[in-house]
Amino acid sequence: MMRINLKLILGLLCLLVLTTLSLWTQCGDSTFGRSLVPKWDRRSFVGGNQQPEQTEEIDCFINQEYTISCRKEGDEVYLPFSFLHKYFEVYGSLSTVDGTTRFEWAHSYGKVNYPKGVYDPRGIFMYFENYNVEMRDRVKCITASDGVPISTQWESQGYFYPTQIAQFGLSHYSKNLTEPEPRRKSVEDADKNYGEWHIPQGSVFRRHFDRKVSSMVVQFATGSSMESAVSLPMDHVLDLVLSLDIQLKHNSTFSVSLQHRETKKDFHIHYIVSDVMISIQEENIYYGLGTLDLNINGTMAWKHLTRDLLVDLQKGVPVSMILGSEKKRKLRRTEIRITKLSFLGAGAFDNITLSTSEHIAHFYDAAEWFVRHQDSTTGGWSNSVRRRLGAGFADLPNGWYSAMGQGHAISLLARAYHHSRGDTRFLRAALDGLKPFRVPSYQGGVLATFLGKYVWYEEYPTTPPSFVLNGFIYSLLGLYDLNSTAPQGHSVEAGALFEQGMTSLKHMLLLYDTGSGTSYDLRHFTLGIAPNLARWDYHATHVNQLLLLATIDRDPIIEQTAKRWQGYMVGKRAQHN
Amino acid sequence: MMRINLKLILGLLCLLVLTTLSLWTQCGDSTFGRSLVPKWDRRSFVGGNQQPEQTEEIDCFINQEYTISCRKEGDEVYLPFSFLHKYFEVYGSLSTVDGTTRFEWAHSYGKVNYPKGVYDPRGIFMYFENYNVEMRDRVKCITASDGVPISTQWESQGYFYPTQIAQFGLSHYSKNLTEPEPRRKSVEDADKNYGEWHIPQGSVFRRHFDRKVSSMVVQFATGSSMESAVSLPMDHVLDLVLSLDIQLKHNSTFSVSLQHRETKKDFHIHYIVSDVMISIQEENIYYGLGTLDLNINGTMAWKHLTRDLLVDLQKGVPVSMILGSEKKRKLRRTEIRITKLSFLGAGAFDNITLSTSEHIAHFYDAAEWFVRHQDSTTGGWSNSVRRRLGAGFADLPNGWYSAMGQGHAISLLARAYHHSRGDTRFLRAALDGLKPFRVPSYQGGVLATFLGKYVWYEEYPTTPPSFVLNGFIYSLLGLYDLNSTAPQGHSVEAGALFEQGMTSLKHMLLLYDTGSGTSYDLRHFTLGIAPNLARWDYHATHVNQLLLLATIDRDPIIEQTAKRWQGYMVGKRAQHN
Repeated sequence: MMRINLKLILGLLCLLVLTTLSLWTQCGDSTFGRSLVPKWDRRSFVGGNQQPEQTEEIDCFINQEYTISCRKEGDEVYLPFSFLHKYFEVYGSLSTVDGTTRFEWAHSYGKVNYPKGVYDPRGIFMYFENYNVEMRDRVKCITASDGVPISTQWESQGYFYPTQIAQFGLSHYSKNLTEPEPRRKSVEDADKNYGEWHIPQGSVFRRHFDRKVSSMVVQFATGSSMESAVSLPMDHVLDLVLSLDIQLKHNSTFSVSLQHRETKKDFHIHYIVSDVMISIQEENIYYGLGTLDLNINGTMAWKHLTRDLLVDLQKGVPVSMILGSEKKRKLRRTEIRITKLSFLGAGAFDNITLSTSEHIAHFYDAAEWFVRHQDSTTGGWSNSVRRRLGAGFADLPNGWYSAMGQGHAISLLARAYHHSRGDTRFLRAALDGLKPFRVPSYQGGVLATFLGKYVWYEEYPTTPPSFVLNGFIYSLLGLYDLNSTAPQGHSVEAGALFEQGMTSLKHMLLLYDTGSGTSYDLRHFTLGIAPNLARWDYHATHVNQLLLLATIDRDPIIEQTAKRWQGYMVGKRAQHN
Repeated sequence: MMRINLKLILGLLCLLVLTTLSLWTQCGDSTFGRSLVPKWDRRSFVGGNQQPEQTEEIDCFINQEYTISCRKEGDEVYLPFSFLHKYFEVYGSLSTVDGTTRFEWAHSYGKVNYPKGVYDPRGIFMYFENYNVEMRDRVKCITASDGVPISTQWESQGYFYPTQIAQFGLSHYSKNLTEPEPRRKSVEDADKNYGEWHIPQGSVFRRHFDRKVSSMVVQFATGSSMESAVSLPMDHVLDLVLSLDIQLKHNSTFSVSLQHRETKKDFHIHYIVSDVMISIQEENIYYGLGTLDLNINGTMAWKHLTRDLLVDLQKGVPVSMILGSEKKRKLRRTEIRITKLSFLGAGAFDNITLSTSEHIAHFYDAAEWFVRHQDSTTGGWSNSVRRRLGAGFADLPNGWYSAMGQGHAISLLARAYHHSRGDTRFLRAALDGLKPFRVPSYQGGVLATFLGKYVWYEEYPTTPPSFVLNGFIYSLLGLYDLNSTAPQGHSVEAGALFEQGMTSLKHMLLLYDTGSGTSYDLRHFTLGIAPNLARWDYHATHVNQLLLLATIDRDPIIEQTAKRWQGYMVGKRAQHN
């Protein structure tokens, strides 16, 4: 009896021990461990707090309005980041480095770009070598007729947006200066490099000397069905920028076939003699080469075409369709192969080349667009879209000019004038582009004044004025670029406009300083409403612009302000009294 | 053997169980309890987080600059308030209500005062009934010669600061309207109420009719030693505001003896015929009644003296000396008793009264000061102190005028004109006080303009202008008060200045809006430096002033801005783009 009892008790006790020990193990991980087991963690013992504290839940009553759940250890109260994120709009994420997880707190997400030296109007523009304008979602496509982007930002149909076109050109100009020389492969030049073309029976394919272009070219003529097309099978990867000289007759097509290397899905990009901008039929994407310059025989003039096939593919079909999945990720350049080039109908071509990049070609496409699309009277490049900057401002009617668009265009054209070694078409367009700077915004120009005292070049020439800061500074850069690039005698006006603008900037700059960030514009002053604070990427743009200006204007207000504004990005603030 | 073994094992197991159980108890308090014992705490189980998490330590890497120790529970990271307090300058404290401790988070410490109705220029001024000007540390004392405060804010010696004197007067005017009728006790009026005076042998004490003042008065004459003084022993508490009419000869003294009821320490306040402002010799505090109006016999003119004895005591000796300890706390009115009044030398007195308060007397002391101290040419009340508003501004030379001081004085004088039922001395001083509003600050006035477009009345007429907001609005209230109080025909100029100022205010108000607070002035614009952000009490003043103005001007910009600015005090922000 006694022995049985003892065994029973023994069994029960064993069970109890095992249970409590298992509980102990679970509990001991953090709090338990800290409060009872000496742990040589430096942080637990700093600040004289020799007795590590237990964590308790505690209510935090926020501004006498609502309650959140916090933690308390001794005298310290801990607030959840999910609350702080919303309350202060700060950013944070867990990240693991060398097996240790830490929380990275970021006051802002803006990025500062330090100028690499004194700003050179013939060099890279700002830090636009980092821009990838054509890949932006709000770019519908790069037109095949002009080789420039089409914006859908304010109208889903798409329209030419001079600011964006200039940024496209300036980014390629800048990339050309910063990227290594591209790889180039001549595929067919009718002269030294011949492709192994497949020429169906009845189709014509011949290399001959074209007197008009003084070069050997390929001439072709086929039937109207795809089977009769002359084609060049390929297996080409990586260098996806295709260029060629081309002259097509009406109803003719130049096609490029692409394949996703993994999913083996095929896509076909067709460049056609049409005014359609872009049209998609399943895996077929059509780009119109334009019909403006067709001659009476229905043949287009020789055209140099430069196409980033990866861009042309992605603007046509969603990435998920290419990848055959719902995965949301970027398509990589390495994933695509060119499988075929083909010509259908009749026409001629020359100099088919595949390259890693053709930045200067894109740059000139943009510059030529500005030469062709400038209003000969006003000198403006019009924004063919209605635009409402915000409640309280009158709408900008279709056709408005932007000081930023004008300035960007001038920056681009000044570089084209320089790069082309003096093509005066670019200089003339740039100089004409100054005209709207002298015309008040209420008369269709871009000129506003702050209380009748300081001139301002309006990115959006609103009524009342909006005084958008970043667009103004971009317009100043355009003026500076032209003043520095134009031959003496031609640079007077740009120089004067630049000087006036810099005077305004130095006097008005601080109106944008909120002591913890910047405002995007001065609508609070002109409309009497809440300030339109600049989100962090615009704030970073302000900083980057000032840092750049500081390299060409030594007035300390510019550099000092840039530095303080930079501090705001890591939580610094102006002092209060 | 088997039984012994069993017992041994049993004993060991018991020990083990007890140990683990005791550990469990200590551990179970918070984390352990939460993770294993179902607790019906709503907060632990909200948000789908059905499995309460353990707390771990984790490093937080702040803006890639430094590391702090945080806590982590599952996906949530908790940051210590000690860090947040410094980083964002927010406030918080633990407080226990009904046995539950919670943490109270406050975005700001400013206090909003809602107007009780439409602003009445004859009524309380702002919320100045809450002001206690004389108790401020930067008030040296209330002079016995004029009955107005002396400021030590910008010069430790002390100087007359018109803004402060007006605030003193306006606060007493406002308190008079909001506080209950005071208790008053007549101690001696030589007519109906006689005190039981102690008259040493050889000293003279007689009640007689003074023809000049048409009243029965007490006349006294004593030797020069304290023993010969005529005195009235008392044991009076609570009503510590003493007033009397008094006429002393040179070298004569009126003294009040006070005792701290607990420490039994005695103090003596002596009002003497002298130009000394305040002088202290241990427990004796001397206030000079002034010598300006002594006649050829060395006798001063009859003077009505109103003294808050608690103030006079505290401005003379530190509270720690009164309490006989190093305790830092306020002296309470209930702690002091009046033990004796005494007169030494020769002179006369009448109407000794002890009251809870004598607000209107203080109010008139201030109003009379403004009548007496106005520059007859410029109409200004000068600030006899050099003042530097901040780096970058030229110093304001001794004698500068302030639009806020002028405005406050006018608010005070307009009320004195009203309260006195038309004493034109007050009206004339108020009207003359407008003169500096027409004189540019660089010519000694208070008028600045914003870019030549908007007039501004400068609290500090600096070069360049500083555009201090709260001082400007106070000056507008002065103009409004005079315009509303002065007889028709006299109010034109004040009305015009007010209207001009309101126009400026509505146009410029938003320049002070930082999207999360306000700036105190526009020095960032005029000096090109960091904005001088308004600390929360100044921000609250901005809000309070706008809420008040909204009751007399229905332009929505005023009320809308006030409401937004109020939101900033609880962490709201303007939107970013």
